[in-house]
Amino acid sequence: MTLTVHEVNDLKQAPAVEGVLPVFHKRWSARAFQQRSIREADLQKLFEAARWAPSAFNEQPWRFIVGAAGTETHRRIAAALAGFNQAWAPKAPVLILGVAKTTFSHNNAPNAYALYDLGAATASIVLQAAALGMTTHQMAGFDHEGAREAFGIPSDYAMGVVTALGYQGEVASLGEQRLIAQETSPRSRKPLGEIVFSAWNEPAALA
Amino acid sequence: MTLTVHEVNDLKQAPAVEGVLPVFHKRWSARAFQQRSIREADLQKLFEAARWAPSAFNEQPWRFIVGAAGTETHRRIAAALAGFNQAWAPKAPVLILGVAKTTFSHNNAPNAYALYDLGAATASIVLQAAALGMTTHQMAGFDHEGAREAFGIPSDYAMGVVTALGYQGEVASLGEQRLIAQETSPRSRKPLGEIVFSAWNEPAALA
Repeated sequence: MTLTVHEVNDLKQAPAVEGVLPVFHKRWSARAFQQRSIREADLQKLFEAARWAPSAFNEQPWRFIVGAAGTETHRRIAAALAGFNQAWAPKAPVLILGVAKTTFSHNNAPNAYALYDLGAATASIVLQAAALGMTTHQMAGFDHEGAREAFGIPSDYAMGVVTALGYQGEVASLGEQRLIAQETSPRSRKPLGEIVFSAWNEPAALA
Repeated sequence: MTLTVHEVNDLKQAPAVEGVLPVFHKRWSARAFQQRSIREADLQKLFEAARWAPSAFNEQPWRFIVGAAGTETHRRIAAALAGFNQAWAPKAPVLILGVAKTTFSHNNAPNAYALYDLGAATASIVLQAAALGMTTHQMAGFDHEGAREAFGIPSDYAMGVVTALGYQGEVASLGEQRLIAQETSPRSRKPLGEIVFSAWNEPAALA
């Protein structure tokens, strides 16, 4: 007997906390997607959210290559995915390749915050997606140089992550048992005492 | 004649877009803070939001050293700030130093996504702060090795950013004219056509 989408969400979503925006707890990284396309107007909202992220010297180093299922862009991103991700992510209705410019445009100096800022902008994408009832799954596991070559991405851009995007689908659609097990296993996070300090390794009072 | 906090927000906040969570447009990086402390229960909400960010192999590489004004922690973070940031950020009611573990705990291999993931977790902090009516300002400009030494941060952690946090204050409290000018200058972001592609440098249809 497999779990319904609703039951999987009950397992995966973090408990709501009063005063905390619900999206932070609603968001989790599914692997099963409905075969339902994403409206362009909704996709636009994700990048509109990302666009306003802060960045070092307001460089906005983030660039996103976006492909819907059936397009050459989607096919190329999917082809670059590493072994384990090949088993599920190519079925996502949308794949997004995020890369970051590693030099500052105002002086060509190296930008040590390129990936940091891409991480922030992509956080906006995945949170806004959760707010719209979609699910996302970021992957570092792909052939970085293969993807670079497939799209002709210049060497001063660092490869970031591929994000799978869609509406959460039935667990059974994943087929393989190892994927189904992952999709229904509980999530875990460190308690605040392990990440919020007042001095190194000393939990802050609030933690 | 100086602008009120309300007028500055009108200048700085991005125009709302229907269907996009308001925090993305409300958030901007102020430099003027009220001398009003932050309740621990509210600080806790910021890190609760951050805690649920996704990360490579669920490593959760983020660590935050947090100090309220008047504490030794705050004094040490403030002391590390670089020239320009020294002029305003030490007055922030809270300073947060974010660092990232650069090796995976499960196998000690290098984690190329440590800063990317710190950027995502910090994005949750600044968005949740905006939702609670606070303002934040992230800074890369600080003495990284000085801060590392001041807190005894091990070499396998990468220095990230210092975030100033508080309630937005009156522009005039900044004193210096160059700071006041920055606090009231318009913000800008690239249009979607420059960051969302279907092939390299080819704007996606949605952009």
